[in-house]
Amino acid sequence: MKFFQVKSVEETFNLIREQIQPITETIKIPLYDALHYVLAEDLVALENVPDFRRSTVDGYAVKASETFGVTESLPGFLHLVGEVQMGKVPSSSLQSGEAMYVPTGGMLPEGSNAVVMIEHCEDMSGLLNIFRQVAPGENVISVGEDMEKGHILLEKGTKLRSQELGALASQGIIEVSVYRKPVIGYLSSGDEIVPIEAAKLSLGEVRDMNGMTIGALVKGWGFTFQYGGIVQDSREEFEQRAKELLAKVDCLIVSGGSSVGTKDYSVEVIQSLGEPGVFVHGVAIKPGKPTILSSAGNKPVIGLPGHPASAVIIFHLFGKAILEQLNGLPYEERRLTFAKVTKNIPSSPGRTDYVRVRLFNENNEWHAEPIFGKSGLISTLVKSEGMVEIAARSEGVQKGELVPVIIFQ
Amino acid sequence: MKFFQVKSVEETFNLIREQIQPITETIKIPLYDALHYVLAEDLVALENVPDFRRSTVDGYAVKASETFGVTESLPGFLHLVGEVQMGKVPSSSLQSGEAMYVPTGGMLPEGSNAVVMIEHCEDMSGLLNIFRQVAPGENVISVGEDMEKGHILLEKGTKLRSQELGALASQGIIEVSVYRKPVIGYLSSGDEIVPIEAAKLSLGEVRDMNGMTIGALVKGWGFTFQYGGIVQDSREEFEQRAKELLAKVDCLIVSGGSSVGTKDYSVEVIQSLGEPGVFVHGVAIKPGKPTILSSAGNKPVIGLPGHPASAVIIFHLFGKAILEQLNGLPYEERRLTFAKVTKNIPSSPGRTDYVRVRLFNENNEWHAEPIFGKSGLISTLVKSEGMVEIAARSEGVQKGELVPVIIFQ
Repeated sequence: MKFFQVKSVEETFNLIREQIQPITETIKIPLYDALHYVLAEDLVALENVPDFRRSTVDGYAVKASETFGVTESLPGFLHLVGEVQMGKVPSSSLQSGEAMYVPTGGMLPEGSNAVVMIEHCEDMSGLLNIFRQVAPGENVISVGEDMEKGHILLEKGTKLRSQELGALASQGIIEVSVYRKPVIGYLSSGDEIVPIEAAKLSLGEVRDMNGMTIGALVKGWGFTFQYGGIVQDSREEFEQRAKELLAKVDCLIVSGGSSVGTKDYSVEVIQSLGEPGVFVHGVAIKPGKPTILSSAGNKPVIGLPGHPASAVIIFHLFGKAILEQLNGLPYEERRLTFAKVTKNIPSSPGRTDYVRVRLFNENNEWHAEPIFGKSGLISTLVKSEGMVEIAARSEGVQKGELVPVIIFQ
Repeated sequence: MKFFQVKSVEETFNLIREQIQPITETIKIPLYDALHYVLAEDLVALENVPDFRRSTVDGYAVKASETFGVTESLPGFLHLVGEVQMGKVPSSSLQSGEAMYVPTGGMLPEGSNAVVMIEHCEDMSGLLNIFRQVAPGENVISVGEDMEKGHILLEKGTKLRSQELGALASQGIIEVSVYRKPVIGYLSSGDEIVPIEAAKLSLGEVRDMNGMTIGALVKGWGFTFQYGGIVQDSREEFEQRAKELLAKVDCLIVSGGSSVGTKDYSVEVIQSLGEPGVFVHGVAIKPGKPTILSSAGNKPVIGLPGHPASAVIIFHLFGKAILEQLNGLPYEERRLTFAKVTKNIPSSPGRTDYVRVRLFNENNEWHAEPIFGKSGLISTLVKSEGMVEIAARSEGVQKGELVPVIIFQ
């Protein structure tokens, strides 16, 4: 067994970036089902959007030059020659001295090159008074201005949010090739762990709440969760059950048994699951030091600490990064929010601390109130909305300091 | 038809708070399926957690008083009398002068009241050298410290996140009563709108991308979406189809036709759907001014602007607030993040502006780069990760200013 040095948070993220290989298997799915999938192909715009010059306002299509110099006190006059119907081609083209009504989204007639907003005109029985000049192209979206035919619309590796789905829908693209979502297996280990369905506990037993918490996070992030149950403290059974489950999933999470106790064989079992094996055993972090990260035949294996709060924090940090990278989203910076801490938080240099916080808004400022509590307490998690990160180089933060917060979601 | 004054963003949120009635119908569901549902009952802790005194570290259970005064240079000595097995009741109680090994999560023996961490001890063949004193209760979670039997565990109205599910699982609560999730109907209106499946567009036509975008947001936020198709610009058909769809859903969204054009009968149709009717017609906001909000027989009806970007922004702001309130979550402050703007953004006082931004991290600071573009452009949405809010009282923000950002999610 190799000897592992405790890694810093930054080193751990770098190792995740290096070691976790994305799933390359792709599937074709209807656009309607594609939310939060990652695109497995470059997609090119098939059509110009818009494919006609479109007004961005309710107003009058004009030749811009015929409005030059008009003002509130010195209006210009144009002959109103009709109305463009939504979704219809204008019945005629615009001649000198003419204006034509066009609704928002309507097509500009030939001969016009700008639209004067309805608020800046007055229709005097067919003679249109214009009180404000417009520049060529003003209030108009030109052909292909939004999406240009033949140009890349979305790149391979893009996560499909609502707006990307909308952009594809506008092109009539109704099926996309995406990466298959990973299936995440979970196994709890420990003599004291019993199923959550257990009606009555014997003294010393606890229910497998980590299975529920981690499962909810996995599902909430859009992945598939497969609960593998509980193994007693038997190295042989643990190894066999872990191997069986790993064969069926893309990533295995093991909870508990990762403290430096006398019965700690988690790291050996995880190492035995496949090459290249364990790449992190211990992180300079509080809580969550006994974290194990491994890659077994290209499948990530995560050994979480058994403490519920530690497990949740580690899984938010490293688990989410691993699952996203597995799904084809390279790990980048974490999206953080900022808040002012309401109390001093002491911290030991050389270790990154994560302190659970309750967030509240006062006078248009976000404040983070530390929820102090032993890492085994579930109630501190329920009271908190996120966690403050205190960098390893720091000796803590002062009351009123603006600090980065990772939201639990 | 009543005459409506344009409302401020704050007034609009206040009206939403007043007018939208939550769905009170409840369902019983397994805890495994309860993620993101809202609890419809107070839940009381059925058991103490922990129900035994538990160690938070790997170490030695002791009588704290017997460690008082020991130091690195002047260690104390105790007789090691065995080991507590995880999940097992200790075989004996602790007598004066004794220590017993206890793993993280293990049960303290009777007679002990603190745990010395393993790092601060040395086992000399059964004689334990102790190098650091502990206070009574140190490294111990006492009975009921986390959850106390008979006390409220979670209140009615709590949104169930992963940690709440974990807390319930730890109590053996495997079924919960929650509010039924609302079903959201959607109808597009406009002569120019065609289904996204349309292979080829005639000049002037656009595909119904709003149906896709709004549907993805609704589903992404955990609600059920029912697409009602497209109605041509016919008041009678629009009214009939809207009534039919509203009867089947809990909330109706209508897109398009809400500009102040000559064919604008959206507000009249929405008003006709039921009492008390329209409570917002026009918001002092850019983009998205022609927003309509109504309550028809306790069902919210939302009239969105037809411009794709405007529709998304309005739906993020007001749509999300309405859907959450309908689901039993009273609207509170929006959770914002903050970033520094990279360019000056001018704005007109008296109107709240929402400017799409791309977010990036540089030197551990978040920056928001405005994506300027006409509100009809889809590509600006694809490039952006959120929107900056510029308050109605402001004339804009300066480069480098810290501004609140609403993330698109």
